[in-house]
Formats: sequence, structure tokens, C-alpha cells
Amino acid sequence: MNTAMDIRRLAINQITTPAWSLEQAIEGYARHGIHGVGVWRDKLAACGLIRARSALRAAGSWVPSLCKAGNIAQFATAGTRPALDDCRRAIEEAAEIGAGCVVFVCGGIGTDSKDIEAARAKVAEVLHEASAFAVKHGVSLGIEPFHPMHAAERGCINTLSQAHALCASIGPAASVVVDVFHVWWDPELYRFLAPPYTDAIATVQLCDWRVPTRHSVEDRAMMGEGAANVHGIAAALEDSGYTGPYEVEIFSQDWWSMPPDDVVRICAERYLSLGTSIIDPSNT
Amino acid sequence: MNTAMDIRRLAINQITTPAWSLEQAIEGYARHGIHGVGVWRDKLAACGLIRARSALRAAGSWVPSLCKAGNIAQFATAGTRPALDDCRRAIEEAAEIGAGCVVFVCGGIGTDSKDIEAARAKVAEVLHEASAFAVKHGVSLGIEPFHPMHAAERGCINTLSQAHALCASIGPAASVVVDVFHVWWDPELYRFLAPPYTDAIATVQLCDWRVPTRHSVEDRAMMGEGAANVHGIAAALEDSGYTGPYEVEIFSQDWWSMPPDDVVRICAERYLSLGTSIIDPSNT
Repeated sequence: MNTAMDIRRLAINQITTPAWSLEQAIEGYARHGIHGVGVWRDKLAACGLIRARSALRAAGSWVPSLCKAGNIAQFATAGTRPALDDCRRAIEEAAEIGAGCVVFVCGGIGTDSKDIEAARAKVAEVLHEASAFAVKHGVSLGIEPFHPMHAAERGCINTLSQAHALCASIGPAASVVVDVFHVWWDPELYRFLAPPYTDAIATVQLCDWRVPTRHSVEDRAMMGEGAANVHGIAAALEDSGYTGPYEVEIFSQDWWSMPPDDVVRICAERYLSLGTSIIDPSNT
Repeated sequence: MNTAMDIRRLAINQITTPAWSLEQAIEGYARHGIHGVGVWRDKLAACGLIRARSALRAAGSWVPSLCKAGNIAQFATAGTRPALDDCRRAIEEAAEIGAGCVVFVCGGIGTDSKDIEAARAKVAEVLHEASAFAVKHGVSLGIEPFHPMHAAERGCINTLSQAHALCASIGPAASVVVDVFHVWWDPELYRFLAPPYTDAIATVQLCDWRVPTRHSVEDRAMMGEGAANVHGIAAALEDSGYTGPYEVEIFSQDWWSMPPDDVVRICAERYLSLGTSIIDPSNT
């Protein structure tokens, strides 16, 4: 089951095929032998929880992550309460569809603020306050470090070191979401793809860093087509005994303009090719 | 002389006024009481060393830094030799105009590479090989950590921690160039604006992080107009006993479209305003 780069560990994150509804995505990914679905809350809301559960069950599919909660910058004027309430709703939704984690995107520093340290403290506060609720629902709060170019507007936790320190301070309620786009440059990348840190990883989101990156959000590349050492990252994880999910997540105007079935087929091919030279530790 | 945010410690980096030749910049900055000039090698070559020295002497001006050397990615196909030769020429030029340091921009990982660790090793190799030559000429190799969004194409050293570790490994030939644009988000920023690290800082380049940043290179903001805590950064440096130069460096299509005299006047005003609430340790 946990063979290196096994198709059974592969999920596609819905943002990779935004033209598809949640039901279409569940069915579409399954057509290509992929039963993992990274779900977005707006798509889940449009589908409804009951239909979503039914579609997942019918396809034999599973959910590594539910995107997203925790954008504290959205709530700058109202304190942390709305962020916390939103986070609790996300946890409930994740529990309803059996998602392994809620992706906690942290958020930026807020309009007119110049205090990234205060924003980071606010993120920690919301995570601490949501942690008991997460444990009760069996859902992990997946802290996702964001690329530093997003520090002002989207995510003020910017390195794997920060994310793991925060995760450790929160305890069993928290985990770390590793997204190649955000962390490929991190000087401590391989330290955090090894024990004991691999145990804290909820999901690994795959894509590549396009050169040049023409848009800070919507110009990611397919694995193998950018500057990131995606193969080396996968090999490091497998060597470390990581047995969790891989989730292809490609925000890209280019890829969004292609037929979703073609995109999903290529995602699966590229994912499987990452495993070609990885020796499965369970076979050695 | 080393009063907090004294005008005598202020330089303008030439890239802030690209419409001006080096002679125009030396004279233009001096009109506003600014005698520090961050020099670019293309502008220096156009002016010629003899005329540049003469203009600097006539204006009573000084040079915190000469931009730039070290772009190892440009030399990917030819090994480190051309990068090293170019670095040596930059050191000679810096010595000729009395520049405190050559800004070592490191460079990206090179076309078709996926190995940022190898690129970092190559940067260290060039720095080590250039270090004796730098010491001999009394010029420091100013290692500038670049924003991670530039890791693939421009600079593969991306945190202050990396830059200071590299600097320490090279010894007295090296220093660190702190650029607010590149490091404002760094989780360890304030650790490296304090002793003993302040002693290793060759120059501090000031600007701000525009929200949103619409272009990865040419959309910097004037101090006070972005998400960076420029005042806090200056206060930390002054509290730590930093007595080196400040250099306003604003790559910006917006600011480049304004009359250079207006830009320089505003640079000086904003710089001086950073000092308003800083208590000068030498007066306490």
C-alpha cells in the first residue's frame, strides 16, 4: 500500500482542474485511476456535504486535505474570533468528508500593517485556540509555509523551520503541509524531509517552479518542467519512510486552459515517473 | 559622525536614478546634501575610472558599494573561471574608486539545472577563490542574500543565516549586504541585525516591499510605503551599534518615471524621518 510513488498514494488537488465541480473531479480523477481528491471549500459548498460524501463513497475516493482555513489577514479588523470560527467550520467540514487535514494558510500581515511578527503571533494564537476542536474531530491543522513572496498578502509563515516549530508548539492537533512551490528554495529543505519531521507531514503538494514565474500565484509548472528538484524531494521523503499522500496542486493559467482530462493524465504520468529510480525501502 | 540616521551616512544607489550618468548622479546627489553613491559597473565603465575618481573627489563623495559581481549562473557552461575573473575585475574597479565592497549577487541555479545546492556550493567556491585578491585590494566581498523568488534566476543565497554562514566561512574578505527588499520577511531578521552580526554588514540597502508587488524586480516601494518595517529595521541596527552606511536602492518603473531630483529629495526626507524616534546611543 505504501510503495514508493504508488498510484494509491496520489491525489489531485481540485485547484488543478477548476473547471470541474467536486463531483466531476471525483469521477474525473477516478477515470485515471486516481482516488485521492484535494477538496476546496467553495467547491464542497456548491456540491453539498451529503452529495460529496456519496460521490466520494461511490468512487472509492479519499481526501488528503481540505483547502483552506486560517487566513488571519482577512480578519484584521475583527480580531482573531472570525478566523477561529471559520477554522472551526473548516474542521467540521473536513470531518464530514474524512479529510486528513485542513490546510491552514496562515494569511498575510493585513492591510496597513508593517508588523509581520505580530501576524505570526496571531497565527499561533488561532492555531492554539482551534487545536482542541481539531483533536475532538480527528482532523489535523495542516500548517502550510508559504513562499516569502506571499508573506505580505497570503502567508506569513515562510520556512519549514517556522512551520515545524509552530507545529511542535501546538502538539498533536497540528501537522505541516509541504508544497514544492513554496519550499523548493528553503535552505533547510532536506533537514525537514527527514526524521523526525516526516512524521509531522500531513500531505505533500507537488508542482514545479516555472522559470520565469510570470505571476506570483497562477503560474506554477508541472513536475519536471521547472527549477525545483521534485525527484530529489520525492526520493528524500521515500528514503525517510514517508508513507503519506502526494497531491498534485497546479495553480496555472496555462494548465487551466487545457482539457482537465489531459491535465490529470499528465499529472499521473509525471507522478509515477518520480518513482522510477527510487528504491522502495520495504523491498530492500 | 555616526549619529543615528545622519545624512553623512546616506548614499543613493545609482539604480534609483538610472536616467543619470555616474557624473550626473554624483553631482545630483550632492545637490541634496548626499555624498554617498552606490555605483554600478556599467555606469562606471561609461564614465571611465579617471573621470569617476575626479568627479567623486570634486563632490567630496564616497562609495559604499560597487554593483555587481558573482552571477555564477551566467557562467554555467564555462565553470567558475569566468565568474572568478569577472569578480577580480570588479574588485580592481572597486579599489580604484575606493568602494567599501563589491556587491556579490551570487546568481541563480543556471538554465536547465535543478540543483540549487550545487549552485550554492559554486558560489562558495568563487568567493573562496576570490578572497585573497579581495583582501589584497582592501575591498570586501559583500554577499547579498536575495529574495527566494529570485532563487532560480538571480540569487541562490536566500536568507541572512545562509549569507552570514558563508561570510564566516570565507573570513575577513567577506561581508554581508542587507537589502530590505530581500530580507524583510526573514524569520531571523532581527537576530542578524544584532551583535555579533552587525560587524559583518558592509552596507544596508533601503527600500520597501510594495503590496502588491507587480513585478519581481522593478516594483520596489519608497521607504514607508510598503509592508516592511523599515523603521524597526533601522532602529534595530542603530540599537546594535551599527555605524555603517545606508543606501537607498529602489528598482521601480514608477520611481524611474519621476524626475531624478524629486526622487533623491524624497529619498533623503524618508531616510531622515527614520531617525526621528531613534535614540542615539552615543548621546545616552
